[in-house]
Amino acid sequence: VISGEWSRGLFVIKPEDEDIHTANERRLKELIGAPAGKLHTGRSRNDQVVTDMRLWLRDAISTLTDNALQLMSTMVERAAAEIDVLFPGYTHMQRAQPIRWSHWILSHAVALSRDVDRLLEIKKRVNVLPLGSGAIAGTPFDIDRELLRKELEFDSISLNSMDATGQRDFVAEFLFWASLCLTHLSKMAEDLMLYSTKEFSFISLSDCAGFMMTLKGLPSSYNKDLQEDKEAMFDCYDTVHAVLQVTTGVMSTLKINQSVMEAALSSDMLATDLAYYLVRKGVPFREAHGISGKAVFAAESKNIALNQLTVGDLSAVSPLFGSDVSSVWDYRSSVEQYSAPGGTAKCSVAAQNIRQCLISTDPQQRPVMLVP
Amino acid sequence: VISGEWSRGLFVIKPEDEDIHTANERRLKELIGAPAGKLHTGRSRNDQVVTDMRLWLRDAISTLTDNALQLMSTMVERAAAEIDVLFPGYTHMQRAQPIRWSHWILSHAVALSRDVDRLLEIKKRVNVLPLGSGAIAGTPFDIDRELLRKELEFDSISLNSMDATGQRDFVAEFLFWASLCLTHLSKMAEDLMLYSTKEFSFISLSDCAGFMMTLKGLPSSYNKDLQEDKEAMFDCYDTVHAVLQVTTGVMSTLKINQSVMEAALSSDMLATDLAYYLVRKGVPFREAHGISGKAVFAAESKNIALNQLTVGDLSAVSPLFGSDVSSVWDYRSSVEQYSAPGGTAKCSVAAQNIRQCLISTDPQQRPVMLVP
Amino acid sequence: VISGEWSRGLFVIKPEDEDIHTANERRLKELIGAPAGKLHTGRSRNDQVVTDMRLWLRDAISTLTDNALQLMSTMVERAAAEIDVLFPGYTHMQRAQPIRWSHWILSHAVALSRDVDRLLEIKKRVNVLPLGSGAIAGTPFDIDRELLRKELEFDSISLNSMDATGQRDFVAEFLFWASLCLTHLSKMAEDLMLYSTKEFSFISLSDCAGFMMTLKGLPSSYNKDLQEDKEAMFDCYDTVHAVLQVTTGVMSTLKINQSVMEAALSSDMLATDLAYYLVRKGVPFREAHGISGKAVFAAESKNIALNQLTVGDLSAVSPLFGSDVSSVWDYRSSVEQYSAPGGTAKCSVAAQNIRQCLISTDPQQRPVMLVP
Amino acid sequence: VISGEWSRGLFVIKPEDEDIHTANERRLKELIGAPAGKLHTGRSRNDQVVTDMRLWLRDAISTLTDNALQLMSTMVERAAAEIDVLFPGYTHMQRAQPIRWSHWILSHAVALSRDVDRLLEIKKRVNVLPLGSGAIAGTPFDIDRELLRKELEFDSISLNSMDATGQRDFVAEFLFWASLCLTHLSKMAEDLMLYSTKEFSFISLSDCAGFMMTLKGLPSSYNKDLQEDKEAMFDCYDTVHAVLQVTTGVMSTLKINQSVMEAALSSDMLATDLAYYLVRKGVPFREAHGISGKAVFAAESKNIALNQLTVGDLSAVSPLFGSDVSSVWDYRSSVEQYSAPGGTAKCSVAAQNIRQCLISTDPQQRPVMLVP
Repeated sequence: VISGEWSRGLFVIKPEDEDIHTANERRLKELIGAPAGKLHTGRSRNDQVVTDMRLWLRDAISTLTDNALQLMSTMVERAAAEIDVLFPGYTHMQRAQPIRWSHWILSHAVALSRDVDRLLEIKKRVNVLPLGSGAIAGTPFDIDRELLRKELEFDSISLNSMDATGQRDFVAEFLFWASLCLTHLSKMAEDLMLYSTKEFSFISLSDCAGFMMTLKGLPSSYNKDLQEDKEAMFDCYDTVHAVLQVTTGVMSTLKINQSVMEAALSSDMLATDLAYYLVRKGVPFREAHGISGKAVFAAESKNIALNQLTVGDLSAVSPLFGSDVSSVWDYRSSVEQYSAPGGTAKCSVAAQNIRQCLISTDPQQRPVMLVP
Repeated sequence: VISGEWSRGLFVIKPEDEDIHTANERRLKELIGAPAGKLHTGRSRNDQVVTDMRLWLRDAISTLTDNALQLMSTMVERAAAEIDVLFPGYTHMQRAQPIRWSHWILSHAVALSRDVDRLLEIKKRVNVLPLGSGAIAGTPFDIDRELLRKELEFDSISLNSMDATGQRDFVAEFLFWASLCLTHLSKMAEDLMLYSTKEFSFISLSDCAGFMMTLKGLPSSYNKDLQEDKEAMFDCYDTVHAVLQVTTGVMSTLKINQSVMEAALSSDMLATDLAYYLVRKGVPFREAHGISGKAVFAAESKNIALNQLTVGDLSAVSPLFGSDVSSVWDYRSSVEQYSAPGGTAKCSVAAQNIRQCLISTDPQQRPVMLVP
Repeated sequence: VISGEWSRGLFVIKPEDEDIHTANERRLKELIGAPAGKLHTGRSRNDQVVTDMRLWLRDAISTLTDNALQLMSTMVERAAAEIDVLFPGYTHMQRAQPIRWSHWILSHAVALSRDVDRLLEIKKRVNVLPLGSGAIAGTPFDIDRELLRKELEFDSISLNSMDATGQRDFVAEFLFWASLCLTHLSKMAEDLMLYSTKEFSFISLSDCAGFMMTLKGLPSSYNKDLQEDKEAMFDCYDTVHAVLQVTTGVMSTLKINQSVMEAALSSDMLATDLAYYLVRKGVPFREAHGISGKAVFAAESKNIALNQLTVGDLSAVSPLFGSDVSSVWDYRSSVEQYSAPGGTAKCSVAAQNIRQCLISTDPQQRPVMLVP
Repeated sequence: VISGEWSRGLFVIKPEDEDIHTANERRLKELIGAPAGKLHTGRSRNDQVVTDMRLWLRDAISTLTDNALQLMSTMVERAAAEIDVLFPGYTHMQRAQPIRWSHWILSHAVALSRDVDRLLEIKKRVNVLPLGSGAIAGTPFDIDRELLRKELEFDSISLNSMDATGQRDFVAEFLFWASLCLTHLSKMAEDLMLYSTKEFSFISLSDCAGFMMTLKGLPSSYNKDLQEDKEAMFDCYDTVHAVLQVTTGVMSTLKINQSVMEAALSSDMLATDLAYYLVRKGVPFREAHGISGKAVFAAESKNIALNQLTVGDLSAVSPLFGSDVSSVWDYRSSVEQYSAPGGTAKCSVAAQNIRQCLISTDPQQRPVMLVP
């Protein structure tokens, strides 16, 4: 019961931290009567403080899980809707291979799905009742800790009184989680900033450059912040809570400029595909790679694009090149080649969509079907 | 098969990192033939590097799990054998309440059991096959990644090629794990150092003060170390691996000086018990606490120990004190009062022993019965 | 004498750390005879280890100071040679105002000059002789520490034996220095990466994208690394030493594409200048800023560039706009307006050049004239 | 003028940060009139924010310098007053050699004196005027930045407008300084906690165990905290400011238990002195050390203290021991042996006192005579 009341009153509680403490005690008394009295006599301030922190963090984790799932859902929907948009994949900020825009979106959604997995694991260790364990030696009266556990909806009770009141591992775990999650959001923000520059012009962000810049810089301050205290925990929650929501807003409102994105593809990004063409004709990979390099060199010498080499030009490099080489220069066919699980082929990307949901949600508790 | 070979060859591999890579490739070819060839053509160096790191870390995690369980087992055995030894529990280095020596041991073992839980969770995320996901777009050939997964004994395959080759979350998770585990060992080392000083003389350590001092100082350097690279990962493993083993040695060879430990108990540590005596006679807790404080003051005024106050002295403070107050001054009765789960009573401590094993081991895989 | 020998032998020493120790001792004996003998009897290993670390770091600091000055010199020369090249200044990756390319270069050189200042301050605290201070109580024999100091060319001797052998503040200071210096180089690398993308095409880097990417990511790992140990110190030196030299190479070989850089300037970047035009005609700043905003809106409505508005268009917004407004649209005049110290006017940028040298070099020891 | 007003109003300002900004602007206008007007037109919010931060930090640094000097002064006075008290010096928490209590105090005061040196160096880099440098390109109007500098009592003006408004190196430097200073105070707190345990009983602290424990744990959270923002800077100042003052209180009120301290000395701590006795008779150090070890073994065999060996017992170990060996067993003579600079001899410790003042204070600005 109290636990439910907590969930609904989450935002009211934080500012008046001292009040929660008392309120909790009073409410506990109203609910379980006598045992609450015994608890009172046997309590140490420590085990109540830790109980309060755990109740608070348990609810904070539920909220953040919802926030993260909401963001993932937005991303997966966008990926489904824009699955036919191609653009350059980058390595070290240099154009590398053509990929689907959705492949980029999902590469970030996958990272978030691991964050949700981790959060649920941490929740198990947060949701352990320390109440009734006193400070050092334990509780001297006949308190039914199992009853308390059930009433407060904890998963289990703490095993050792010294450990129960002294350890703050769950706070350190949560702070590390937040730091890793912010790293993921920050990497995404870094890419979005780049794609929205005048020079790239792949996407338009609705007036949130300042926020994205802050987000890009966040983790370098956060991941040092492993102070195991209450303030750090509150502060961290506020940041991640806000960031997840704003990022959801950004991801649902940004506009893509498909023509600019696809115009950024160029045939030199298909040099690897040219090698694969030869591999399919039986050339060993290393040799094929060498021949492809020679073709790139030939195009550069003539100061033309790779796909402007004639079949004649190409067969001067290797007799295996035939007129069917023209099929290589199609960007859409290129991304379709990568059809193993995790690749850029339409079916592979679509398969990623569906899976996302399965990993990160408990089907019984959260019947969210992100993609029909 | 390869996976099994890895496990056995673990310590040979690390120094010649470059060799593993090649060795692995060759062995893979011998084992799965054709698909390995396709993999070779379709590979990027990145997905192989990440596969190697994951194979290595998977085995490292198994070893560390064994090390940690071995240490816990040593501690639990010691706790069982020395369950009747009492000594002072400390708060802020000041003597607080009498506890069982085993209660102190188990407060540290419980922290280690959470470390083992975390390690097993991380293992799930480490044991994901990136091989065959190429660098950006995926693999262009018809490689059966599911077959590779089975052969290499991975739990699952990576979902998105960009994420698979680019992310090092599993390294960051492992480094954080190591930092938290070292924090636990360091806290234990700090207490052991203190207990082994000439001034405390509770325990004798067999000539390992230097090591314990290093261990005490370790985490303050380690928990900043969240570089997500291979070297950090190797280095971190070496440290935790060594530290767990030496700590096991320390915990199995240290000698306790029971008489000194119990002589360190004094009746002023029972002031809370004196209050509980009154609570049992119906005095509200706050009032009882006040009366107990007056008794402490009375003893200090007379410059005698708390338990040297006569029944007359005590009844001048409160008429509720009777001749049965003498039962309060027994340290063994004192620790027996705390009989709720997690407390210092013999039955509570014994219950902790048994539970430890249940949490941290998968009964099917590890039929370790630490305490019969 | 030994000190001089050290300087010359710097790179030989590190790998055989144990040898240095002995070598140093032997050489000291050859040089100062009897006192070295006394030192030997009175020595503790600790004060020798710290002396060796300080000797090593003193020389490392000299080398890094030279490296940093070399890089600054390269940057200042480039800034002098390319002072007439304009390009966009960016805020949050968005084009903001036209600036000189040299202004960008010098903004990074100024940060490096502070790094050199800091390094020289740290050197003072490194160059303190601990030798002869024993481990705890000091040295029991009549050793002339002042003579040792002179012979080993230290600036001063340590004041308290416990502090002298126990503290590693100088290592922590050096590691923090390295972290801050790498942050500066990393920010520069981030900009260079961006400017060298196909999309920006402002500069061409000679095949060092991978290195620049590593450099961009370095400090987020380094600034956690405040372990006060010898290995961290060696490692940190190696990194900064290499990075400074490679960055010098990058800065001296990169090619700029002046036409692309200047073509990236657009008249909307002069909206602030349009406001200043009005301020010069007596309009209060806030009001001028508002009028300028209206002009920007008018141009957007007509879907033309800001400088394509006719005088008629502009005077519809404010009657103060006259035909002399055309002078605003000259990018070169724009940067010349900022002629206060530190601004983008040619004279201001040239003044920065000269000053750089004055701050960061001791004229007596380093008669480096970076700019004639 | 403003600067002076700032100093006096320091504590009022922080809570209403937004107000300072406006207040500063208004006051500047009242003082310098016209240039302030120009500044207003030419200002960007950025250069004002940074100016405010620098003004604030400059005053914060003055206050902390005073706090640190006050603490050092308290420590030096105590060291002078209690110079004749001996107690055990510890290595790895194990008793090692007899030292003066004042030697321990000064080992910590020396560390603080380096903190003051560093703070004064940072102040130089904080006290640089960014005002009038605009955001990117600089200031377009004819503002006399030199006049502003003088009025606001800055040491110099910023060199490059982009660097001036973008860099927060001075905040990072301050945070690192705070982290290092807290490390020093924390190490001192750790020793004091230990010395005040019931088991050691060397000192009595007036009811501040909780504070000392917090202080002991502080730096492990602080030294990760290198976020370069305003809040971190304010928070850090508050912590160090409070900690320095409370530590001054602790150091001036603690009581020492001289008899317990000296009773903790035992003759086995003089084994090194026994070796020195032989060295003075011409025995090479290594050999002397071996003989001393044999004497320790002989005493242990007889189960007596080292100084209870008779001259006969000792001469059985080495014929060089004579009746004058009795002089070795005097603890006061022992500490007097270490008379080189930095040692425990009374004159060496007294010399440390005097020097402390010289290093860390500028005699012209701060005529503080800590020791007469």
